[in-house]
Amino acid sequence: MEPAMRIASGDIVVTETLDAAGTNARGERVADRPNPMNGPIHVAGAEPGDALRVDILRIDPARGTGWTRSALSANVLDPEYARNLPPRDRAEWIIDREASTVRLEAPEAALKHLVLPYTPMIGCFGVAPAGGEAISTATSGRNGGNMDYRGFAVGCSVRFPVAVPGALFFVGDCHAAQGDGEISGTGIETCCEVEIRLTVEKRRTIGWPRGELDGRIFTVGNACPLDQALQHATTEMVVWLKSEYGLSEPDTAHLLGQTVRYDVGNVFNPAYTMICSLEKKWLPERPKTA
Amino acid sequence: MEPAMRIASGDIVVTETLDAAGTNARGERVADRPNPMNGPIHVAGAEPGDALRVDILRIDPARGTGWTRSALSANVLDPEYARNLPPRDRAEWIIDREASTVRLEAPEAALKHLVLPYTPMIGCFGVAPAGGEAISTATSGRNGGNMDYRGFAVGCSVRFPVAVPGALFFVGDCHAAQGDGEISGTGIETCCEVEIRLTVEKRRTIGWPRGELDGRIFTVGNACPLDQALQHATTEMVVWLKSEYGLSEPDTAHLLGQTVRYDVGNVFNPAYTMICSLEKKWLPERPKTA
Amino acid sequence: MEPAMRIASGDIVVTETLDAAGTNARGERVADRPNPMNGPIHVAGAEPGDALRVDILRIDPARGTGWTRSALSANVLDPEYARNLPPRDRAEWIIDREASTVRLEAPEAALKHLVLPYTPMIGCFGVAPAGGEAISTATSGRNGGNMDYRGFAVGCSVRFPVAVPGALFFVGDCHAAQGDGEISGTGIETCCEVEIRLTVEKRRTIGWPRGELDGRIFTVGNACPLDQALQHATTEMVVWLKSEYGLSEPDTAHLLGQTVRYDVGNVFNPAYTMICSLEKKWLPERPKTA
Amino acid sequence: MEPAMRIASGDIVVTETLDAAGTNARGERVADRPNPMNGPIHVAGAEPGDALRVDILRIDPARGTGWTRSALSANVLDPEYARNLPPRDRAEWIIDREASTVRLEAPEAALKHLVLPYTPMIGCFGVAPAGGEAISTATSGRNGGNMDYRGFAVGCSVRFPVAVPGALFFVGDCHAAQGDGEISGTGIETCCEVEIRLTVEKRRTIGWPRGELDGRIFTVGNACPLDQALQHATTEMVVWLKSEYGLSEPDTAHLLGQTVRYDVGNVFNPAYTMICSLEKKWLPERPKTA
Repeated sequence: MEPAMRIASGDIVVTETLDAAGTNARGERVADRPNPMNGPIHVAGAEPGDALRVDILRIDPARGTGWTRSALSANVLDPEYARNLPPRDRAEWIIDREASTVRLEAPEAALKHLVLPYTPMIGCFGVAPAGGEAISTATSGRNGGNMDYRGFAVGCSVRFPVAVPGALFFVGDCHAAQGDGEISGTGIETCCEVEIRLTVEKRRTIGWPRGELDGRIFTVGNACPLDQALQHATTEMVVWLKSEYGLSEPDTAHLLGQTVRYDVGNVFNPAYTMICSLEKKWLPERPKTA
Repeated sequence: MEPAMRIASGDIVVTETLDAAGTNARGERVADRPNPMNGPIHVAGAEPGDALRVDILRIDPARGTGWTRSALSANVLDPEYARNLPPRDRAEWIIDREASTVRLEAPEAALKHLVLPYTPMIGCFGVAPAGGEAISTATSGRNGGNMDYRGFAVGCSVRFPVAVPGALFFVGDCHAAQGDGEISGTGIETCCEVEIRLTVEKRRTIGWPRGELDGRIFTVGNACPLDQALQHATTEMVVWLKSEYGLSEPDTAHLLGQTVRYDVGNVFNPAYTMICSLEKKWLPERPKTA
Repeated sequence: MEPAMRIASGDIVVTETLDAAGTNARGERVADRPNPMNGPIHVAGAEPGDALRVDILRIDPARGTGWTRSALSANVLDPEYARNLPPRDRAEWIIDREASTVRLEAPEAALKHLVLPYTPMIGCFGVAPAGGEAISTATSGRNGGNMDYRGFAVGCSVRFPVAVPGALFFVGDCHAAQGDGEISGTGIETCCEVEIRLTVEKRRTIGWPRGELDGRIFTVGNACPLDQALQHATTEMVVWLKSEYGLSEPDTAHLLGQTVRYDVGNVFNPAYTMICSLEKKWLPERPKTA
Repeated sequence: MEPAMRIASGDIVVTETLDAAGTNARGERVADRPNPMNGPIHVAGAEPGDALRVDILRIDPARGTGWTRSALSANVLDPEYARNLPPRDRAEWIIDREASTVRLEAPEAALKHLVLPYTPMIGCFGVAPAGGEAISTATSGRNGGNMDYRGFAVGCSVRFPVAVPGALFFVGDCHAAQGDGEISGTGIETCCEVEIRLTVEKRRTIGWPRGELDGRIFTVGNACPLDQALQHATTEMVVWLKSEYGLSEPDTAHLLGQTVRYDVGNVFNPAYTMICSLEKKWLPERPKTA
């Protein structure tokens, strides 16, 4: 796939994402694959073995509406309970830019005017995977993808493992708000204007996405079941603590065992997402810059 | 099993728990089963179909030391990574009641004097299970048990489904601190003086533990794998929202889909624990008292 | 629980089991727990660290009817597919002792007179578990229990790990026929006259049930998900090959890697069952008798 | 990817596969991706919505040696057991075409001259996936792929769902023998001369691979964990019985519940494989040809 844009390391990109149905900010259906992405963006100098750092600077609403599905996904409920589920109808939400809220428009629901804060996040982003694969944007892996983690919000920085020259970054599927797990199969699906900075970190080899958010460092595992996603994320954290902070296996057991936190990304897509995080204040001083 | 104590609904109980190895506050080994419990406590008037509400009022250190294991559990790491794991040695921690801290005593570790806040929690509590079962306190189920959730802390209230007359409440296995998942197979294992209030809520039939904490309501699922624990917890939340708050299936999809949070209890015991929670501020006024 | 019968090692027992609903051969409801068992049978001389060998000699029909459920269990189907499932109605089957067949009586079904061979099996058997637990007969563990494996048929011999003096053997829940997985939540549930020989094998310490069937040795793992049941069964086989046949880790990889077979017991109960088996003809001569 | 060959529906193809390491029958390393495939083969007339039927006519050894790994995979053993695993060394096997056997050459092993029958199978085959994906041949999905099922042997016929014009069939990674699960991470990896017939079945829409083998029909599910693979395979079987044999949901519960068999493909790759099968003799006459 030819790059849609070529930039230098450290450049800031502003792009307007489509929603998960391929609809743009004017309400026009302009793409038809699930979770259409913007990109790929070629970042000069990125080579396999490097990391691509993405700083999320801004996620502004690009239109005044979003949509969700009106039924929980069967796979997050006891199997027999799925017999009770309603149709997966589409519900509309109004995004109020002034008030920074989203408001449900569901006249027949008890919660018909539920108002939630606008808490935007990037549902799907990452880099080209290794081995020449072209994976569906419905799923995720070491290269990122459709992770649907509410922590991928303004102020978060994430690193992805570069697998091909130029990294070939993509981004899309923004949500105006979303609970853990994306358990109705959608966040509040909308179009956003996203501002991000893309920086190549040379020779920083990582196995899975790693990031920083709210005074914490975190790792991401994408797999099914959740247990395996948790294994990937925890192993990546152990490897990180060992290679960059010099912690031994017993040290990581002491530190992670008593302070680790896990967050759930999506449990809806083919690969689920688990985040493993640690407060920076417990970390020893880093022996080398990164 | 004969009740160790009989109380009235609403009574406050103060009890000193043993640590997970059966050692008491004086350092004497006084029990030899895993996670020895205090109890059972018979609460007058509790009948099947009721809930037993437990308010956690106080968890004070009953001795000045705790212990942990110095290796992560193999099951939270990528399977082949387990080849790298060190022995499951025991590490000691000093509990400082004045400073309200725990301090690692591991001379050869890089983190040899790691100091963490004293953030005590109850590892294992619940009521007698249904059907005459006598389940190991190493595991958990609808009746509670060894859930190892850091949220079972002071200020938390939890309801358990009463399955036998008198409920037969038990409590033990307190931790001076613990990360999510109990991923080294231990929290900081110690003895605590626990003060709790036990109240029978008549005809409040629940399927799994439910509780309140920090402005949130929550449900608990205990099963393996994590996905199934998440299914139990989510289904219990849906049933709760429907039966006590009058929310329809689409309403629960709107509310939970965009605001739910999941926390991980232990991923070490035979049954893993997942917590599903919701901020109270999003709830409609309750149609009936409870 | 007091033994219902006391026997010597090597004795043959003939017992008439109830069906899964607690109904006897005369159609009388005589017990009300799920999968009521016959027993416990105390076998003289059995001590923790021994194995109890059970030879299944005969499973004859004790009544002329059996029953099943008319819907597949939601947990063996794609989660959203459960929306399509019919009610879990009860269907009746006629057991023909002369012809050795079972015949469906479902007038409105396309398969209304489906006739299958009578291929009886024991759904639930085992010994008292360790640690004073009294586990529901709906589930299973190291001690056996509700495993629902079609291989537990005439000619099969199984060993269970003795955890309490006398072993306290129990048996019940026979099926006139059953596919893998017990995926409709039932086999053809009926009452049978079961003839078994119970023999204590001194100092033969095992971790999970082990047996022999049709020229193969096998091990059983009971857990959820299936992957974990497979892990338990495979590990027990490796331990067996090492301790009794002297095979090294590479030897077990060569032998099991290229010849192992897995069979699925139930995938319906709280713990699923996986069988790991190996043809005896590939085994080296055993260094010691057992 | 450009087709390597274009054929008509019904044509027979003879091709010599590389082994999993990319080595050919002369022992030359000629490809470097995992499980290099032969193909893609464009079959005239195949369109999305059709099925591509593959009849396996012959799998002859193309060289006199094969290789395996000498350690079981950590993920098929209890997590802590992985501490005991030996290195994943490579072991050599001699393929004797006259005797139709494979013989281990491991001088230091107790089983140093283990001789097994030559029972060849295709480890990896299928068609191009939907949606423009280019998935690694290390994994599998609706389109087939690296399934490592010992039933993919001479006499088996399999249908794959065509997702792109021409189907774009690929085949490779043959094993001279393999147990269930590919639990040492390899079968006996070698090069084979494979003879297959490829036939387009117009307008036969299927969701997952379906086939016939030894008097049975079967479906294939590829996913992780095994439970999900089992769900996919079972659902595909239910859909098949309904659409082609006219069976209602209760009929499928009666028939599958009491006669279904599950076989395990690999439990080593990112997606595990489960086969759901049924004896043809229990099927009602088919209302339409296929």
